[in-house]
Amino acid sequence: MNHHTTDRAAETKITDAQSAALELANLPESTRNDALHAIADAIEANADAILDANERDVAAAEELLAAGEYTQAFVDRLTLSASKLESIAGMVRSVAGQDDPLGRTLAARELDADLELYKVSVPIGVLGAVFESRPDALVQIAALSLKSGNAVVLKGGSEATHSNRILFEIIVEAAADADVPDGWAQLIEAREDVQTLLERDDAVDLLMPRGSSSFVSYVEDNTSIPVLGHTEGVCHVYVDSEADLGMAADVAYDAKVQYPAVCNAVETLLVHESVAEEFLPAMADRYREAGVELRGDERVRDVIDAEAATDADWRTEYGDLILAIRVVDSVADAIDHINTNGSKHTESILTEDQDAAARFMHGIDAASVFHNASTRFADGYRFGLGAEVGISTGKTHARGPVGLEGLTTYKYHLEGDGHLVATYAGEDPRPFTHADFEGEWTPGRLSDREE
Amino acid sequence: MNHHTTDRAAETKITDAQSAALELANLPESTRNDALHAIADAIEANADAILDANERDVAAAEELLAAGEYTQAFVDRLTLSASKLESIAGMVRSVAGQDDPLGRTLAARELDADLELYKVSVPIGVLGAVFESRPDALVQIAALSLKSGNAVVLKGGSEATHSNRILFEIIVEAAADADVPDGWAQLIEAREDVQTLLERDDAVDLLMPRGSSSFVSYVEDNTSIPVLGHTEGVCHVYVDSEADLGMAADVAYDAKVQYPAVCNAVETLLVHESVAEEFLPAMADRYREAGVELRGDERVRDVIDAEAATDADWRTEYGDLILAIRVVDSVADAIDHINTNGSKHTESILTEDQDAAARFMHGIDAASVFHNASTRFADGYRFGLGAEVGISTGKTHARGPVGLEGLTTYKYHLEGDGHLVATYAGEDPRPFTHADFEGEWTPGRLSDREE
Repeated sequence: MNHHTTDRAAETKITDAQSAALELANLPESTRNDALHAIADAIEANADAILDANERDVAAAEELLAAGEYTQAFVDRLTLSASKLESIAGMVRSVAGQDDPLGRTLAARELDADLELYKVSVPIGVLGAVFESRPDALVQIAALSLKSGNAVVLKGGSEATHSNRILFEIIVEAAADADVPDGWAQLIEAREDVQTLLERDDAVDLLMPRGSSSFVSYVEDNTSIPVLGHTEGVCHVYVDSEADLGMAADVAYDAKVQYPAVCNAVETLLVHESVAEEFLPAMADRYREAGVELRGDERVRDVIDAEAATDADWRTEYGDLILAIRVVDSVADAIDHINTNGSKHTESILTEDQDAAARFMHGIDAASVFHNASTRFADGYRFGLGAEVGISTGKTHARGPVGLEGLTTYKYHLEGDGHLVATYAGEDPRPFTHADFEGEWTPGRLSDREE
Repeated sequence: MNHHTTDRAAETKITDAQSAALELANLPESTRNDALHAIADAIEANADAILDANERDVAAAEELLAAGEYTQAFVDRLTLSASKLESIAGMVRSVAGQDDPLGRTLAARELDADLELYKVSVPIGVLGAVFESRPDALVQIAALSLKSGNAVVLKGGSEATHSNRILFEIIVEAAADADVPDGWAQLIEAREDVQTLLERDDAVDLLMPRGSSSFVSYVEDNTSIPVLGHTEGVCHVYVDSEADLGMAADVAYDAKVQYPAVCNAVETLLVHESVAEEFLPAMADRYREAGVELRGDERVRDVIDAEAATDADWRTEYGDLILAIRVVDSVADAIDHINTNGSKHTESILTEDQDAAARFMHGIDAASVFHNASTRFADGYRFGLGAEVGISTGKTHARGPVGLEGLTTYKYHLEGDGHLVATYAGEDPRPFTHADFEGEWTPGRLSDREE
């Protein structure tokens, strides 16, 4: 595999990705899918070598775990196993099985006779992905990039260096054997290479940083490349005065306890004052049985035992079995609290009152706003988007869980017959017809139709 | 009008826009449209006062024109007239008449029984617009922002200060009378206020700078807010070996001469070597009659008289009656030249060969790629998007001519009945149904349907 070395300068790698992107954009769907199946097969065929490399990373991490520098959860995320590799290969095949995001005609409009405009989906170009120390992240991002026809520059966590390196080499070799042009994926490893990546606005079209919100902010502050930021989730569940309290208890429990380490877990529970006394005591018992530490405002602490919440608690993503609780006076107060303290990620109202639900869903500025459902549903797989590259808390380009569609942009194709703008300007301008129609752009469409 | 003063600190104005944005997002379509009609009426009713203010700006500009600091074209763009005000008012009414870009259900998917996901269009939030010295730009951007439910912070060119100030005051007063919440539009005037705007990533969701590409680059380099950049257009017309040469001559002429000052005018003409001798001499005569200065490479200068083109010519937006011409050997060479030197704006091929057209349209990385049509069609109005906020040469969020849709984002609304993620995880997970359906999200939709 030594023809895919990883020791060239980052500058060169990024330029190579830029060249490959133009070719990759026009690769037939069958080539991209065949390559994804070849990658899945190669991951399975090389499982032993991958696990050996991963063991080196895990051994190093365990030393730092013993020294108290890493958590067990961190080491767990880093660790691969035979069954985890199976599921990674399965994920790659499921990406291959998704509908082609490219070449879709998103809109078709006749501007005038024989003058037809088509909006066609195309890849973005070159993606830059900087992600955390989960080796499966590298495979997932590379697979989504290839399926969507994008070149990608990958930078994983240094703790996963050996795992990332072998996975990368397996991926590019399998793809090359399946006729994907060389250079479409690039691995950079040094911290200073990230700086190089941020500066290459001439070559990189979209950055996808994943990690802490301070890291994402650092990226946003230090590049002029557009950023699809996957930052923190300070998510809320609001139990309204008209909630079905049994349903509310189940949803509030699921949203916190089912998997507290993820960004779509609830961090603050808001409870309408009229149901606080009825709802909170039993809910608190149930949370405590699951080991959840509770922090509340004064009105919460009048009803249940809880640590006193500080202002910082309302803005904290615990990512752990800790929950802040606040009593509010109205839907409007709940909306205010969320718009002031939330991170625009995922918010849920429990109520049987449709007006209250509507006010909440209209009033909250967040990517996902739910009614009578757990915040944990905010996820590309559960939303039916297939695999996801992340959950965007930004408001432009793509918002919320981002799947393949978020890795595409569009081009306008105009098919004419010698049309001039002068015809539609001046003294006696010809009017446009501007009539939308159902149709797909295909090369030479206009002439085909005329024959 | 003195309750809408423009002398508050920029910080306060931006924060006020942020507060207004949440209210504005939920304003009924009828209120937004009524306000737009009120604005159009107020512009007509206050025409004399607007023209008086504009005269002050024009007088100052004419002094600098006499001193050689401004061009006549600059002063012309700054100058309003009664008929120009009529057409501005008409533009505002046409924005009011467009389909509502908000509250559209872009996708609906059943995740499981009684668990329905809707992707609904919503405003982005707070827009920051920094634009050139055309007073009509302020009205157009304010109208598009209001129609799309966005708050907007406006910064126009200082040469239009008096014109912008009175137009702004008329707009906010008319909108307030039509029940639009105060604060939705803000005018900032000082150069240092632009710096404040760039720093307010806590409040501003999208920046729309218009002007020189160095200005747009400055904005991109000095903010972490997403930027919808409207920069230069280095557009090409390629005359293929299989072109209808009569059609090609008309399109190449229209693309340069019909209005050379705009970004979608052609700057470089590429001609296949096999037709250069037949095509170029008559074409050059026609250009010269229109006053176009020609610059060519050596092979062009073998056939016609032209200045020698330098490397810089291939990358220059002349915005004037100047044209660079190059002879190329193939469609592939034309594509290479354009991908290397172009600005990803608008490119056109003239050919009767559908394969060549397809290669060109697939191979070019640009927002608009045309076949047998003038580059000048790349425009929001001609594309049928209604008024445009600009033409984006970026590749994320919105590309090419940007209309109202580019000023929206989306929210995911999930309607459930107490659904928990735990049900779909663990040992015996319930499968998702993930079935798309045709349907609009309306508040309480799930309960309505069940009744």
